[in-house]
Amino acid sequence: MTALQTDAVRHHDPRVRGFASDNYAGVHPEVLAAIALANGGHQVAYGEDDYTAHLQDVFRGHFGPRAEAFPVFNGTGANVVALQALTERWGAVVCAASAHINVDEGGAPERMGGLKLLTVPTPDGKLTPELIDREAWGFDDEHRAQPQVVSITQSTELGTCYTPEEIRAICDHAHERGLAVHLDGSRIANAAATLGVPLREFTTDAGVDVLSFGGTKNGLLLGECVVVLNPERVRAMKHLRKLSMQLASKMRFVSVQFEALLTGDLWLRSAGHANAMARRLESAVRAVEGVTVVRPVQANAVFARLPREVGERLQKRYRFYFWDESTGEVRWMCSFDTTEEDVDSFAAALAEEMAAHSA
Amino acid sequence: MTALQTDAVRHHDPRVRGFASDNYAGVHPEVLAAIALANGGHQVAYGEDDYTAHLQDVFRGHFGPRAEAFPVFNGTGANVVALQALTERWGAVVCAASAHINVDEGGAPERMGGLKLLTVPTPDGKLTPELIDREAWGFDDEHRAQPQVVSITQSTELGTCYTPEEIRAICDHAHERGLAVHLDGSRIANAAATLGVPLREFTTDAGVDVLSFGGTKNGLLLGECVVVLNPERVRAMKHLRKLSMQLASKMRFVSVQFEALLTGDLWLRSAGHANAMARRLESAVRAVEGVTVVRPVQANAVFARLPREVGERLQKRYRFYFWDESTGEVRWMCSFDTTEEDVDSFAAALAEEMAAHSA
Amino acid sequence: MTALQTDAVRHHDPRVRGFASDNYAGVHPEVLAAIALANGGHQVAYGEDDYTAHLQDVFRGHFGPRAEAFPVFNGTGANVVALQALTERWGAVVCAASAHINVDEGGAPERMGGLKLLTVPTPDGKLTPELIDREAWGFDDEHRAQPQVVSITQSTELGTCYTPEEIRAICDHAHERGLAVHLDGSRIANAAATLGVPLREFTTDAGVDVLSFGGTKNGLLLGECVVVLNPERVRAMKHLRKLSMQLASKMRFVSVQFEALLTGDLWLRSAGHANAMARRLESAVRAVEGVTVVRPVQANAVFARLPREVGERLQKRYRFYFWDESTGEVRWMCSFDTTEEDVDSFAAALAEEMAAHSA
Amino acid sequence: MTALQTDAVRHHDPRVRGFASDNYAGVHPEVLAAIALANGGHQVAYGEDDYTAHLQDVFRGHFGPRAEAFPVFNGTGANVVALQALTERWGAVVCAASAHINVDEGGAPERMGGLKLLTVPTPDGKLTPELIDREAWGFDDEHRAQPQVVSITQSTELGTCYTPEEIRAICDHAHERGLAVHLDGSRIANAAATLGVPLREFTTDAGVDVLSFGGTKNGLLLGECVVVLNPERVRAMKHLRKLSMQLASKMRFVSVQFEALLTGDLWLRSAGHANAMARRLESAVRAVEGVTVVRPVQANAVFARLPREVGERLQKRYRFYFWDESTGEVRWMCSFDTTEEDVDSFAAALAEEMAAHSA
Repeated sequence: MTALQTDAVRHHDPRVRGFASDNYAGVHPEVLAAIALANGGHQVAYGEDDYTAHLQDVFRGHFGPRAEAFPVFNGTGANVVALQALTERWGAVVCAASAHINVDEGGAPERMGGLKLLTVPTPDGKLTPELIDREAWGFDDEHRAQPQVVSITQSTELGTCYTPEEIRAICDHAHERGLAVHLDGSRIANAAATLGVPLREFTTDAGVDVLSFGGTKNGLLLGECVVVLNPERVRAMKHLRKLSMQLASKMRFVSVQFEALLTGDLWLRSAGHANAMARRLESAVRAVEGVTVVRPVQANAVFARLPREVGERLQKRYRFYFWDESTGEVRWMCSFDTTEEDVDSFAAALAEEMAAHSA
Repeated sequence: MTALQTDAVRHHDPRVRGFASDNYAGVHPEVLAAIALANGGHQVAYGEDDYTAHLQDVFRGHFGPRAEAFPVFNGTGANVVALQALTERWGAVVCAASAHINVDEGGAPERMGGLKLLTVPTPDGKLTPELIDREAWGFDDEHRAQPQVVSITQSTELGTCYTPEEIRAICDHAHERGLAVHLDGSRIANAAATLGVPLREFTTDAGVDVLSFGGTKNGLLLGECVVVLNPERVRAMKHLRKLSMQLASKMRFVSVQFEALLTGDLWLRSAGHANAMARRLESAVRAVEGVTVVRPVQANAVFARLPREVGERLQKRYRFYFWDESTGEVRWMCSFDTTEEDVDSFAAALAEEMAAHSA
Repeated sequence: MTALQTDAVRHHDPRVRGFASDNYAGVHPEVLAAIALANGGHQVAYGEDDYTAHLQDVFRGHFGPRAEAFPVFNGTGANVVALQALTERWGAVVCAASAHINVDEGGAPERMGGLKLLTVPTPDGKLTPELIDREAWGFDDEHRAQPQVVSITQSTELGTCYTPEEIRAICDHAHERGLAVHLDGSRIANAAATLGVPLREFTTDAGVDVLSFGGTKNGLLLGECVVVLNPERVRAMKHLRKLSMQLASKMRFVSVQFEALLTGDLWLRSAGHANAMARRLESAVRAVEGVTVVRPVQANAVFARLPREVGERLQKRYRFYFWDESTGEVRWMCSFDTTEEDVDSFAAALAEEMAAHSA
Repeated sequence: MTALQTDAVRHHDPRVRGFASDNYAGVHPEVLAAIALANGGHQVAYGEDDYTAHLQDVFRGHFGPRAEAFPVFNGTGANVVALQALTERWGAVVCAASAHINVDEGGAPERMGGLKLLTVPTPDGKLTPELIDREAWGFDDEHRAQPQVVSITQSTELGTCYTPEEIRAICDHAHERGLAVHLDGSRIANAAATLGVPLREFTTDAGVDVLSFGGTKNGLLLGECVVVLNPERVRAMKHLRKLSMQLASKMRFVSVQFEALLTGDLWLRSAGHANAMARRLESAVRAVEGVTVVRPVQANAVFARLPREVGERLQKRYRFYFWDESTGEVRWMCSFDTTEEDVDSFAAALAEEMAAHSA
């Protein structure tokens, strides 16, 4: 495609990949092809286009006939729109202390959504009915922001997955207490790949009311989707999306990416590959003396502990992040474009640095 | 490009174009090529990539050495981020009653930015020092939301343009009174093409503090840019962008589009072409008895009045909007991909419908 | 009462009264006696006390059996709580441009309530169905903040009154279009005194959904009350009051003031007296050559125009405000404690200053 | 005073007192006398009165010559105004998980102030530099709401007190890291009485920047005060108070109450008495077998654990709250009007119920 004329020039080396984040990766070629396909001619703006219309069918194929899809720009936007839709002005959100909405969104839920988060510490990023009850109380007491929704992340920020049964237990419990359930599915495809079940088995069928379906981390250029699974729980989605500054004018180009992702198995191929690379990395890392894998590898992330100096030396060769500066824990993420060779070279580099360190 | 494999299919006829809006158009091929160019390999997420770094130079070339560019997703986002950056919690924004921030953003400035808009009716969408003074008062009075910024649109929502002198007069007046100036440049390129002057002549050099630089309506897939011209007036832009849910993870793909647009003359070619098509349309329309062009054509929009039934019949052949249902005023917009043939066919169709109506 | 011991000392001359505002006046002695009556012993905090319980009956006596009263601290608080109760997150409020919520609340509706105000210029501070329609449109269009409530002020900020029929016409029109009606009754008693009808005739019976019942300007120490007339229109009032920082812990002392005001005829006596003093002032002023009364005197305010220097000299003798610096219009307000002698002395002073000016 | 005429009637038995909360008590007679003293005549509204002017001197006498006092309505209002004054739009507040701002204000800080609270579990309601550091990190990272202020409560919600040294250590630590310090002094007088030091020793002199000075729980009718100790840290206090709906029109009546409280020793007498009653209660309770005092009694609250059924039977005789339903912990609070006889009778009742239970 680069044969086409443009005044832009390439500023990076497309052969370089790291393990810092799945959003360091670019666009899957099939997704880019889809964007080109949707180009040309005029299409009604702001979501009234033919691609967004068709996308409804695509999402219904995965999530059931009541699903409604609202494409947005990014994960923060998806979460804040979804949570506003599930709460009243006096509502609050029960979530894990490690949830992305709590630690990584710059205060957007509070500042933009006016939402109070009722956070619960968890061992592995996963809520349970018991953990939810630590904050789901005080109903009808005006001194307490009213718990109205439970937000869970699948796969979690700590690389773990809920089973369908665990999510069903959470949904049943939440619904019994009058709370809705939101699922932050920034990496939902990785969870599906790990669980080996259809998407709806741990969402619609488990009782989730609204989810944020992640596209960017699974190979889209840009795009997430608020998917309403239980339309009776929400109102005025389109108004909330617009006033939350998440309404794309040329929405066809967001929608067609999801079509490319979800019509066939691209979503699953890409996520499954990223997961497989993480497991390959896990194996390789376990073989390196002095490095400990510290969390279960159930998606596309490997969390490990290693000597700080080793980590820092390795960072000069490959991009990645320390997850917890105080403990020396690092996070290594794989993505749709991680190759076996990438993993093997990285593991070799790690082994080298460890050896140099131990020597 | 469609030769590449994708599971998405084409749902529209790329030969069909209308006059409804410049964001009904798609992506300029040179922009799409730039996106492809930036693909592959890993780049740091959230704006720390090489394309966004280079983009700073690109914008500085147009707006001077102090300019700082913050790519965001859409126009509402650009405006709300920019206005927050120029106001305190107790601040208010003076703008034309017809401003996009007042009439077309679903309340986002108030609901997300907590901003009060102090609106002034104008004859042609343009503020003046005198009009600004109708709302720029009550300083230090806590009963009044404090006027802290003037927001103007260039070109305006009514298809008119400020001259550089008019903007300079507004900036001087605003600054004298302690207010900053924001320019909503959703169609800034169209204004530059009309005025025939460099971008900085009516922005940086005229005293504008921050602008929202429009990309989407000028051929980008998606992307606007908050450009800080006077860094002393703003703080914490990156925090405001993030908490306003406008931070793209794979920002390279937004930035490279602007690079394609602004490195050479694509921005000016595209906007100049759209303007030329609007003037061609204006001429053709003026020749049709019974249709009146009701506003000066100074950018890419033609506002006209015609019998309501004629408008409605014409809408069955071409997409466009009634601007004011009560007066029968319509708005016809041209874009980078409008062809001379499009204009001529449309004008012919209009003449036909008028003739049928008059007969 | 001053015989009781206190370390506080009197800092002002209680014989001095002016015409600046009805909230320059103090507490009516009967209200102060009521506060003392409610003192002593323990009462449940936050509105679960016996005085607030009884107050429900008091308000129902005036506004009908469905009325529910929520005491709050001040007028801004009452209005912002009421308007939040009548709107969704995506809602907007149609009001006169001169409404207190638009011009005198420091942006609280926008900043605290997240509300967009859709303002309409009016000749006399009064909306009509026709004026409402200038802003009550765009339903279901996500680009427009959704008009969900009409807010009117009775008596208005310009000293005028709606007739019951005018309010009924507004309510019918608003309800037909799906909007609720809020009445800012900061000076509702003055309106009732002017109209000579029961409070419910131009509120409950006219179709008003929620009102802000003013106490402070009619002789309370401090206190306003959100009165829900149509409970089907609102939800979660107590949550909104609390999160809007308007929940008094020792609420008995707010409630008992309203009991003192509304059980007998104190509310009407006080407001009627203030109105009579305004009419007395109007007559006296009309006799002074060179001074023009510029608005109908239908409540407790007199708006007049006089030479600026005369106004400024008079301000050295009596407190009052210029209403419009540009035109030299002044506002003179009477309150429950204004005496006939106050009025006569003030009118004499005005005549003196005018004579000195003309000489 | 009840000899004065009013249409209100007494609805409660002023001889009945309980141990539920210090805001179940009424107004101290000296405070009521001060209100009467300030009545009569006209005073400029909205804080421009002589009482509020004088109040500045009163507060400066306690907190030093730079102190500025801003009377507001209630504690939630005081805290939200103070915290907004100390943060930017992108700021966050580090506080104890048990802080009133986190658990008892219905989400007002988030919803009205747009503030994110970064909460830390504590054993006794008290922060330390170490505990603060658990959340005071991520500076300059836009993904994290920026920690800009530490908020502590003195005395704490758990009845404990910080020593002046502990507060100084917190302030030094916070300031070093660029954070300001807010002190929620809803019960600040109780802390001063316990510590036996002047108010400024653990506030101004310890480095606190802004405090919420509590009046209501120490015998005022209604009123709290935001006291700025370090004016360099804040801006636009009056604008923030107004837009936060906390500006009283007849402010003289709030200010004069603080004058009555703070000019002599009423504040200390009342708080010292309440504390003494709490200690008396503690002693009596310790003598009852089966009841355990579970927290240090350092202010006017006693926290105890007793069999649930005993608690419930006792609640039929005296008002008080279970603090933690799950553990059977109760909170008993004393106030300025608690008598020795009240305490003794209550302790006797407790002993009776325990005996009946054990029998």
